[in-house]
Amino acid sequence: MNIVVGQSGGPTVAINASLLGVYKQAMKSDAVDTVFGTVNGIEGIINDHLVNLNEQLNTNANMELLKVTPSTALGSCRYKLPDVSKDPEVFEKIFKTLKKHDIGAFFYIGGNDSMDTVDKLSKYAAAHGENIKFMGVPKTVDNDLWTTDHTPGFGSAAKYVATTLSEIVSDSSVYDVKSVTIVEIMGRSAGWLTASSCVLRANGIQAPQLIYLPEAENFSEDKFVADVKAQLAKTNTVIVAVSEGIELGNDEFRSGAVDNFGHKYLSGIGKLLENVVKEKIGCKVRSIELNVMQRSASHITSKTDVDEAELIGSKAVEAALSGETGKMMCFKRVSDKPYFVDCFAAPVCEIANKEKKFPKEWIINDGSNVADAALDYFLPLIEGECIIPYKNGMPMQFKIKK
Amino acid sequence: MNIVVGQSGGPTVAINASLLGVYKQAMKSDAVDTVFGTVNGIEGIINDHLVNLNEQLNTNANMELLKVTPSTALGSCRYKLPDVSKDPEVFEKIFKTLKKHDIGAFFYIGGNDSMDTVDKLSKYAAAHGENIKFMGVPKTVDNDLWTTDHTPGFGSAAKYVATTLSEIVSDSSVYDVKSVTIVEIMGRSAGWLTASSCVLRANGIQAPQLIYLPEAENFSEDKFVADVKAQLAKTNTVIVAVSEGIELGNDEFRSGAVDNFGHKYLSGIGKLLENVVKEKIGCKVRSIELNVMQRSASHITSKTDVDEAELIGSKAVEAALSGETGKMMCFKRVSDKPYFVDCFAAPVCEIANKEKKFPKEWIINDGSNVADAALDYFLPLIEGECIIPYKNGMPMQFKIKK
Repeated sequence: MNIVVGQSGGPTVAINASLLGVYKQAMKSDAVDTVFGTVNGIEGIINDHLVNLNEQLNTNANMELLKVTPSTALGSCRYKLPDVSKDPEVFEKIFKTLKKHDIGAFFYIGGNDSMDTVDKLSKYAAAHGENIKFMGVPKTVDNDLWTTDHTPGFGSAAKYVATTLSEIVSDSSVYDVKSVTIVEIMGRSAGWLTASSCVLRANGIQAPQLIYLPEAENFSEDKFVADVKAQLAKTNTVIVAVSEGIELGNDEFRSGAVDNFGHKYLSGIGKLLENVVKEKIGCKVRSIELNVMQRSASHITSKTDVDEAELIGSKAVEAALSGETGKMMCFKRVSDKPYFVDCFAAPVCEIANKEKKFPKEWIINDGSNVADAALDYFLPLIEGECIIPYKNGMPMQFKIKK
Repeated sequence: MNIVVGQSGGPTVAINASLLGVYKQAMKSDAVDTVFGTVNGIEGIINDHLVNLNEQLNTNANMELLKVTPSTALGSCRYKLPDVSKDPEVFEKIFKTLKKHDIGAFFYIGGNDSMDTVDKLSKYAAAHGENIKFMGVPKTVDNDLWTTDHTPGFGSAAKYVATTLSEIVSDSSVYDVKSVTIVEIMGRSAGWLTASSCVLRANGIQAPQLIYLPEAENFSEDKFVADVKAQLAKTNTVIVAVSEGIELGNDEFRSGAVDNFGHKYLSGIGKLLENVVKEKIGCKVRSIELNVMQRSASHITSKTDVDEAELIGSKAVEAALSGETGKMMCFKRVSDKPYFVDCFAAPVCEIANKEKKFPKEWIINDGSNVADAALDYFLPLIEGECIIPYKNGMPMQFKIKK
């Protein structure tokens, strides 16, 4: 039999390591002939656009380069499968492609939307007597998937955020003046990545002094101004980490900004808070959006994260070949020090379409910071550095021909 | 005698390597007893706030860590010396501090404003019979200093920009849709850093397809829209690199944006152009500001740049000890392949307060791109990677106690 692997949702720097894990483990098995990649996630199966990975990942150098290449080497999609009752045709197309290529197992590397796809396809297979296994491999910088201790992609994003923040702190403190620097970090409704900025204190850097997460639910302009003023009374250089999903209680501020065409300015919360500081406090202020670099900076990845991403891909193949389907591979943390994790398969229906929030008990100072207790959780995930090959002074990347 | 070294202007990742170069070369000389650092540039001399570097840079580990620490370890300032005729008192204060600490030479690491300080102080010394040498050590990510082939700090900033852009290109091309990504890069009136984004093509990445520099002087909203449309006709993923200093001919667009308080939104050109694409083209679009990370990302520095920054600091000490004053150390490029530079001292009055622009002959496609000829200039400057020590998954930094 053959297998197919796809990538879905937003890119991370570890998602290609999971692709490699699936490929290498499958190649170890006599049961698998060819590993196909589906181009642009489930869309590639609907449109019968597969590539033969055996032909492209044919050297160790190619495989090692794929492992440290950012973004989704197979392309991605944001396609959400309809309910089978509403559109059976798309399911028929998918199974037609799978059977045409003698696919025995499908591996989908993605977040909670992708797990919904795994769930629907495994249920369809069961209902129609199709013996094809469907397995989920987790991936998201948001770290918001249920059941698993953490998700591949998150550790590297957290390492990028911590590294960049430590550099921003240095940059912000060179002049002998009061200043506020607001750093906007990814996470629309789960604040894990923003919260992870607390790790700087492990290296003696007392910043960010203020960390705002969507989970705190008590953010307001007045509270923010009071918090910043209190910090400015203590130090020259105030650093604020804020989740992109934070909303000002007074949303007029955001909605009021329009350009000459009368269109709303879609500024992030960082720029809005910069304007609040300018207006209400008046000191030097700037805002920085870490933007897509958080999820794509493959030149600064966590070795722990990238190695685990490969591991969990390989474990998904093991599970499928031993008969599992409709499951996502998860990490169980055995211990923090020394850090050690186990892998296990959990029913994907428990995970799909849900969101794991940052624990309320780790939010302190009336919603403006994160407890030291969270450090034991975060620190192992950013540990270790990957060796990146450079050419002409720039990191090399592996390209899959499509 | 003793010497003093200071840092001024915006931080770079190579400015501490120049500080180290000054320190190590001075320690090699029997003529120098103590190397002082001035805290916050010339302000530290005015206020007699010096630190003894011999006491702090007392191990090889400390020195190596200082070399890869971002930002200005001694702090910085934006202080511009007045004309001596208008405020002789500040000059008297400076020379009082210098004489109090038996300073025989002052080294100022900075950009064109800092060279103005070196110029004024060396002229004051000559006019008042003070035997103190004043030497400039260049530093700026803008690469806009006269006489020198390039400036320390620029190569690392260019390496960060190139690396990050290659990752942004990967991130931008995962979905099967037309999209425009606008990347705003530092450079208010000199476009060197934005122009350096052309190096991606050396690794086969045909992006950014559009590169806009202030030097082109023909930028307009209509031209931009036409350029982007032409690129979208050829490819799915259009990447635009734009200097922060670019202005839209029609400046109403920028000035029209106000918030609920009636204050202007101080958006960068990237966000403005994002809105232009949204309005006039309507495809998927986003803007990314590389912000202070360009000048502070010490985790991804050019080894060529950092080593040269140390070298030029040491050469400034050699020059001062051989009697030079009122000069800035410069690089002369001997050859591109193999890359080789010499150092020489040039009168600072030829350099201060001037700005070297990106050459017009390297601007092509009616001001929307950069010629391949520029690659030979840029590529050697981003070559090589520094080894960075990590602790808890984050780069370590050296702190000077002040």
